[in-house]
Amino acid sequence: MERLRLLIDCPDRRGIVAAVSTFLAQHLGNIVTSDQHSTHPTDGRFYMRMEVDAEDPVAMRNAFGQAVAEPFGMTWRMVGAHERKRMAILASREPHCLLDLLWRWRAGDLPADIACVISNHLDHREVVEAMGLEYHHIPVTPQTKPEAEQRLLELVSDKADVAVLARYMQILSAELLDAAPLPFINIHHSFLPAFVGAQPYRQAFDRGVKIIGATAHYVTAELDAGPIIEQDVARVTHRAGVDELARLGADIERVVLARAVRWHLEDRIIVTGDKTVVF
Amino acid sequence: MERLRLLIDCPDRRGIVAAVSTFLAQHLGNIVTSDQHSTHPTDGRFYMRMEVDAEDPVAMRNAFGQAVAEPFGMTWRMVGAHERKRMAILASREPHCLLDLLWRWRAGDLPADIACVISNHLDHREVVEAMGLEYHHIPVTPQTKPEAEQRLLELVSDKADVAVLARYMQILSAELLDAAPLPFINIHHSFLPAFVGAQPYRQAFDRGVKIIGATAHYVTAELDAGPIIEQDVARVTHRAGVDELARLGADIERVVLARAVRWHLEDRIIVTGDKTVVF
Amino acid sequence: MERLRLLIDCPDRRGIVAAVSTFLAQHLGNIVTSDQHSTHPTDGRFYMRMEVDAEDPVAMRNAFGQAVAEPFGMTWRMVGAHERKRMAILASREPHCLLDLLWRWRAGDLPADIACVISNHLDHREVVEAMGLEYHHIPVTPQTKPEAEQRLLELVSDKADVAVLARYMQILSAELLDAAPLPFINIHHSFLPAFVGAQPYRQAFDRGVKIIGATAHYVTAELDAGPIIEQDVARVTHRAGVDELARLGADIERVVLARAVRWHLEDRIIVTGDKTVVF
Amino acid sequence: MERLRLLIDCPDRRGIVAAVSTFLAQHLGNIVTSDQHSTHPTDGRFYMRMEVDAEDPVAMRNAFGQAVAEPFGMTWRMVGAHERKRMAILASREPHCLLDLLWRWRAGDLPADIACVISNHLDHREVVEAMGLEYHHIPVTPQTKPEAEQRLLELVSDKADVAVLARYMQILSAELLDAAPLPFINIHHSFLPAFVGAQPYRQAFDRGVKIIGATAHYVTAELDAGPIIEQDVARVTHRAGVDELARLGADIERVVLARAVRWHLEDRIIVTGDKTVVF
Repeated sequence: MERLRLLIDCPDRRGIVAAVSTFLAQHLGNIVTSDQHSTHPTDGRFYMRMEVDAEDPVAMRNAFGQAVAEPFGMTWRMVGAHERKRMAILASREPHCLLDLLWRWRAGDLPADIACVISNHLDHREVVEAMGLEYHHIPVTPQTKPEAEQRLLELVSDKADVAVLARYMQILSAELLDAAPLPFINIHHSFLPAFVGAQPYRQAFDRGVKIIGATAHYVTAELDAGPIIEQDVARVTHRAGVDELARLGADIERVVLARAVRWHLEDRIIVTGDKTVVF
Repeated sequence: MERLRLLIDCPDRRGIVAAVSTFLAQHLGNIVTSDQHSTHPTDGRFYMRMEVDAEDPVAMRNAFGQAVAEPFGMTWRMVGAHERKRMAILASREPHCLLDLLWRWRAGDLPADIACVISNHLDHREVVEAMGLEYHHIPVTPQTKPEAEQRLLELVSDKADVAVLARYMQILSAELLDAAPLPFINIHHSFLPAFVGAQPYRQAFDRGVKIIGATAHYVTAELDAGPIIEQDVARVTHRAGVDELARLGADIERVVLARAVRWHLEDRIIVTGDKTVVF
Repeated sequence: MERLRLLIDCPDRRGIVAAVSTFLAQHLGNIVTSDQHSTHPTDGRFYMRMEVDAEDPVAMRNAFGQAVAEPFGMTWRMVGAHERKRMAILASREPHCLLDLLWRWRAGDLPADIACVISNHLDHREVVEAMGLEYHHIPVTPQTKPEAEQRLLELVSDKADVAVLARYMQILSAELLDAAPLPFINIHHSFLPAFVGAQPYRQAFDRGVKIIGATAHYVTAELDAGPIIEQDVARVTHRAGVDELARLGADIERVVLARAVRWHLEDRIIVTGDKTVVF
Repeated sequence: MERLRLLIDCPDRRGIVAAVSTFLAQHLGNIVTSDQHSTHPTDGRFYMRMEVDAEDPVAMRNAFGQAVAEPFGMTWRMVGAHERKRMAILASREPHCLLDLLWRWRAGDLPADIACVISNHLDHREVVEAMGLEYHHIPVTPQTKPEAEQRLLELVSDKADVAVLARYMQILSAELLDAAPLPFINIHHSFLPAFVGAQPYRQAFDRGVKIIGATAHYVTAELDAGPIIEQDVARVTHRAGVDELARLGADIERVVLARAVRWHLEDRIIVTGDKTVVF
């Protein structure tokens, strides 16, 4: 028996669940969990995620497209639950998100292989290499940015299925994002769409908000505007200066990023336009 | 077309979803939403809630038992989404939970008919009757408790499908609960199982907790030990005395109770042993 | 003995607390609570709020300016804790914030006198008048806005010490705000600065945020940009449509607004530039 | 200039703040922050924490007792803000709280010196020693518990000002606690007083709570009953099994413990009976 994850995205209409579940029963699959969402029962879009224990997963995968997906116009994927994704982590100077991911990975809480860590600084080389992981130093200056991006693109395209920006402070160009065959997950240190761009804790301090937050999202060419995966917040008071906001925020950032990465690795996320469905 | 809610609780095994969804498709039902939960794919228990648009809901209801429920050993119910439940509200002196339910009901946010308000005090008669609702005053003393409970039992059994204890401060006897053909939902002003029994804010103050809470649960014969439906909390500091805890807690109580009642009215809750599954 | 609230705002320097507390001790005042905040011990600004039990509050008030406030360049006020403020409430069609304030007031939880309720609609007249309160209907159209604002200004200037916009959906002109001798508190249905302006729940839905919120702030001429008093949030998922966001948000709005109003009534807020210090 | 922290605990009465702040002004101290709390202005207990910039901290410290503390019957301490406390960390097998404290310490977020790490297991020796820190392995069996506790007591008494139980799974005896000249801070993986004792996540699962939590508290002879310093919680659903609760809870545990330890190190906590005042 192998556990498969089935993700479906299609126009909603009558009979989808029946068709899928009958197909699975015929192929001796046992539905372990199932979540679905419809934006409207007749005019809407239908999303589903199932975990299925399959006796013959290859046959099931081969048959599903023609038998079910095509008749319903589905975008779909069927992924083995034990196929670990390869993850590249990008970081700059701030260590907390990088270290948090590495520690969770080492504790067995992130079902991925760490392909490599890439940084525009040397700060984390020692810690990363001591864990037996590759560390690639790709410095970025305004002059070298195109070559640096080219090198980064080759690295992640070659080695990884997903790249995580763990407080990586360089903006990725639209060209890089267009060319990259893998998604990038970023953590932004504000509750987007508030405080897009640089120095969000400074912006939050200046605006006098009573709540700060962090947002994990897929990266798109428009800065901090990609589909939001997860957000969380914490209360603050007038007593907190910018440094204190950053210190309190760091605990939110790492938890929010870790949740988003985990959900991505577990194939819980369907991107739909500028938004996500997270099952 | 009529919208039905289907709730299922049975031993988990292969083919349940296929059987249900095929049955629904054959009866021209369109699955609008579906949630399910299994405690274990082979040895566990399976729970499901679906909303289905049915062209012939009577036929669907009549056929489901023999066609699907019996072969799988299901406990099940199929309820029309527009069959409004009749709700009795019990209150004592504190007004906030009672008023909150009444206001939500009047704003159209609680899909129920208010059968009556019952209280062991007269405090709320005027407000309740001004809303055009029945108010039954059933005083309770140690001597009159059996008769009072008998009267209460007759009232709610006759008029209501669910009774909500909106800070009703009398303990219901095991006899009453055994005899009553309807569930009772209570709001307890602590995050259970902490601070069972009387004066939970006093207990919370004495213990010096940094968080207070409220718990909505179905009532069972064991005090404050029934299946929990919903809980929420708020941060407090050493500055809050007992009265301040009660004031802050009141806002939690009313939101938690309103959520629990709404979920019950929408048939989102399956009670399983001492616990709930809330879809 | 009378309880006074003393609020101070001045450049920080050595000896402020000593000067204030020695003055109070000399005037037989007993400090009941004290909070203070300094943005920087030498170059910063100093804020303080004290509650003081005074045997001769008139003498204390008369002497403080010359004895303490002037030497330190203080902006200050000394207010009797039992001087209830007069509050005007402005509402449009949505009832939840208006009703919530009225209920808290009737339960004794808002230490204010309700001067009147003003609305550009007739919806709430009956409920408000049944509570024995004045209801002023001031319709607003593009043509009549200047006269309507003039009438509104006269009403609140005459009757109230603070005006609360409890989901009042008309934008107040800069002229009105300049001319009004009292502060306006507004509840905006988003976690500002996200989703300024109209239909924030629609904006939140379109952006796909995982958290919604509400913000209470003092009103300034720039829309939704005044000093923030209080914010709170709630988690949402992809399942919530715009209506559901509005329903969930309503519970946040009313709690956030009630907290902000209470803090204003208790003289806990010092406005400093575009921000607030809330003690 | 040296920054001092002054903590005071005494019966409340008129003139305390005046006496303290006048004393500080006379000794050329500048009050940087001040927090206070009184349980009742005439019959209550008064607590205060100040940070003071002092030109002659030794003289200030020497004079305060006779000049101020004795007349008012104060329990007090005056501590240099830059006197780093020595901290021992005790851990068992679970790494997350231990690692979290070490990482924060290395990032400069915990103002302490790590005296040593003590464990009844060998699991963390490598990581700890790689950071240049002492690791003491003190195995505990029912037979060797007295000797083990004796060794532990000698270690922490000799080396540390505070000991932190970072998921240390041995219960400390009343004898050890009585003899130890330093406080122990523990993290318990439930929102106390719910789920005292062993396997709180199992207990939480069995009770079907909708919220889990963690509690940092000072250790006393009565199990999990010491003064609570900090608590936090997270929402869970029926979907979370015991392992998932433990995984979600780990993120709460480490944040709650880190906050409590930081507050202790910053001298923000006054223990009063079974409770804490946290400034």
